[in-house]
Amino acid sequence: MVMGSLPEQVDVAVIGGGVGGYVAAIRAAELGKNVVLVEKEKLGGHCLNYACIPSKTLIHISDIFYEAQHSEKFGINISSASIDAKKMLDWRLGVSKKLEDGVAFLCKSNGVDVLKGTATFISSNSLQLTDGITLEFKKAIIATGSIPKPLKGFEFGDTIIDYKRALMLDRVPKSMLIIGAGYVAVEIGTLYAKLGTKVTILARSDVLSHFDRDAVELVKRRMSELSVSIIAGVTPIERKGNTVSLSNGSSLDAEIIVVATGLSPYTDGLGLENIKVEVDQNGFIKVDNSLQTLDPNILAIGDVIGEPMLAHKAIRQGVVAGEVASGMNSSYSNIVVPAVIFSDPEIAIAGSIEEAEGVKVTKFPLTGLGRAVALDTTKGFIKIAYEDDGLVKGVEIVSPDANSMIAEAALAIEMGATIEDIADTIHPHPTYSEGIQEVAEAALGRPIHFFYGKPVK
Amino acid sequence: MVMGSLPEQVDVAVIGGGVGGYVAAIRAAELGKNVVLVEKEKLGGHCLNYACIPSKTLIHISDIFYEAQHSEKFGINISSASIDAKKMLDWRLGVSKKLEDGVAFLCKSNGVDVLKGTATFISSNSLQLTDGITLEFKKAIIATGSIPKPLKGFEFGDTIIDYKRALMLDRVPKSMLIIGAGYVAVEIGTLYAKLGTKVTILARSDVLSHFDRDAVELVKRRMSELSVSIIAGVTPIERKGNTVSLSNGSSLDAEIIVVATGLSPYTDGLGLENIKVEVDQNGFIKVDNSLQTLDPNILAIGDVIGEPMLAHKAIRQGVVAGEVASGMNSSYSNIVVPAVIFSDPEIAIAGSIEEAEGVKVTKFPLTGLGRAVALDTTKGFIKIAYEDDGLVKGVEIVSPDANSMIAEAALAIEMGATIEDIADTIHPHPTYSEGIQEVAEAALGRPIHFFYGKPVK
Repeated sequence: MVMGSLPEQVDVAVIGGGVGGYVAAIRAAELGKNVVLVEKEKLGGHCLNYACIPSKTLIHISDIFYEAQHSEKFGINISSASIDAKKMLDWRLGVSKKLEDGVAFLCKSNGVDVLKGTATFISSNSLQLTDGITLEFKKAIIATGSIPKPLKGFEFGDTIIDYKRALMLDRVPKSMLIIGAGYVAVEIGTLYAKLGTKVTILARSDVLSHFDRDAVELVKRRMSELSVSIIAGVTPIERKGNTVSLSNGSSLDAEIIVVATGLSPYTDGLGLENIKVEVDQNGFIKVDNSLQTLDPNILAIGDVIGEPMLAHKAIRQGVVAGEVASGMNSSYSNIVVPAVIFSDPEIAIAGSIEEAEGVKVTKFPLTGLGRAVALDTTKGFIKIAYEDDGLVKGVEIVSPDANSMIAEAALAIEMGATIEDIADTIHPHPTYSEGIQEVAEAALGRPIHFFYGKPVK
Repeated sequence: MVMGSLPEQVDVAVIGGGVGGYVAAIRAAELGKNVVLVEKEKLGGHCLNYACIPSKTLIHISDIFYEAQHSEKFGINISSASIDAKKMLDWRLGVSKKLEDGVAFLCKSNGVDVLKGTATFISSNSLQLTDGITLEFKKAIIATGSIPKPLKGFEFGDTIIDYKRALMLDRVPKSMLIIGAGYVAVEIGTLYAKLGTKVTILARSDVLSHFDRDAVELVKRRMSELSVSIIAGVTPIERKGNTVSLSNGSSLDAEIIVVATGLSPYTDGLGLENIKVEVDQNGFIKVDNSLQTLDPNILAIGDVIGEPMLAHKAIRQGVVAGEVASGMNSSYSNIVVPAVIFSDPEIAIAGSIEEAEGVKVTKFPLTGLGRAVALDTTKGFIKIAYEDDGLVKGVEIVSPDANSMIAEAALAIEMGATIEDIADTIHPHPTYSEGIQEVAEAALGRPIHFFYGKPVK
């Protein structure tokens, strides 16, 4: 896009080039709209550059490294293994760069004009861009995402870092204190523990406090095997150098202190005061099912509109918003947003697995799966929640490959599948996915590879 | 079961304790039937003891071993790695033993009586067992499976072995010649190549000749990287010692020669001549949708009734046969039997991916997936076949975790899902399963992470 005489006029302006924003821009462009995507830093946003992708890259590397050295039982002898952290960082940065370039290519190929800089609303149909350029739009999509929450008294610097910088270290620290115990803390703590760091996690209440205790128990046991210390029920009081004093009177030293206490919606400098958009008490922009804000010209998607702050939610909303902004009658009506914690073992959830009036839950342990026994990965399970008529309400998978398998559960729930639909579908052998079939068979009262203790004839 | 005064009388007699047979026995016992399971060798049959489980165990070990030594790009330095083949074998045998014991426990807990020995039909309601015992039954289920096809002139011995013995070696051979090029040959060849064996595969026509060439091409390229030689379009003529002469006039030496030319139905000694069961020209027992043979008292399941000779088909048929033999009105009516080849990359298929009148096929390459780029596993793709109205007919996945992911496709097809159902279901990020969503989005004409070359505006 050549910014010639001002003001420019576009059909759709998208603010924020993360996974929500660029998807929305591409979708609108596919529908023939003239689209500008404004990104002040890097295409792909946090997910590609600082969060999902870097963390999964490093988790994968730490898994190879750790597993190679702990496979004596399989007959594998590794005499010495080491990490070249600079090379590891190069790979991780290279991956982000490659994906960022990929997004640029996709935007260009689809005819999306990418502008580097900031964008501030002047009115319900105009934006002030960097260098004083004014951009007029018919529809705008806010996709500005979120930023790590700071912690008072623990200002970010060389020693105190956020999760973004924890995924950009050029060395494996000797010790790491993580303040916060959500999934980001667990993922980062586990990966560095596998690389050899002495990790301590500080939990206000408990690790993964919003998740199923059965699952969390297995993750905690594994972290304990990895010598991760979890200090629960305490808060950090203050920090002096590398020392943090705690609410229980003790103190801790660590080479690196990671603050991972959550995310806040990112709307700074957007000029929300100049449009009719409303935010809730936590700063999240309010939208309806069509992802429309209270301003008829303006939509919002992704982290900036609230929980769950997950990339794939933003991606799906990007598709919907791109369509709505292009005049289609689409809506964001997904029943489930699956969630994956890349802990060890992985936890993946679609829907709810809470017992309730008319909702039962059945559990199948991985000890019943040939593949899990073969690969020494029996510490896990699959749970399914279903109504009395068999309608599937939720599935939880605690298993290797959980991240790949939860999609079946999401599809099942979106399509209104019953436990019988799943039980009668042939799942290939020997795979972890058989566990989804087995738990459904058990729910139907016809378990095969686990004995639930009914009397023998 | 105490074999007291003869003859014994049971509701259901199951012949063969493999994955089909023991599942049928457990299901019938759950339904209150008096069940005897006759197995002449090991519970779990070929799958647990000699085929699926051992191969996947060794494939996993070979993957860890190989990957550990080829992760310099990730910053992982392994100075020396070795395989203790005896320990590897111990693990693999231990896994089979554990699973065999597990099946024995499940049978016992469900009240299934397991008899060790052979069984020969005397009539349509009686069997001659080992030691001259006669067992009367109301219903019998034949689940005797299959045996490796011998190759004339290549009698099994110390040098020439079948796939079963290839998965029981106590050393990593220096060289291995595999006669046959189906999935068993590919799996065994790849795993030994990763452990350091110089592998040669002899293909009458080509490797995996019944599979999608796009997928096979990737597998062949990978085998080439692993220094596996594929000699296509030749047949073995004769063998002298460790030397095999070929139809093209050349000859080959190998420490171990594996004959993997397929499986035959196993009905030797069953006494089929004494019952009304019919077999087809290949020796497979004929059954109807209820898995009933032409003899009203006798059902048959699994490999012995024909292709596909896959464990999970036998398991599903075991459930159905157990129900039918117990008087339920069940039928084996699955639309798809997914298949997985644990090659590198893995290939998994559900349904058909052939283009046809009214059926289109769309392909999405793994280069479009963040997870694949991050983990350096972009050599793969996902294909989807769908009718003009969107109905999904088939899915092929060539990717890591393909074995775990194909279940979603199987469920989709069994439930009559459309490409829109899949495209609109949120698949978690960053996972390989996103590829299933992406290919469906592309099929709908709204691709995101791959550009299919439509003109830029």
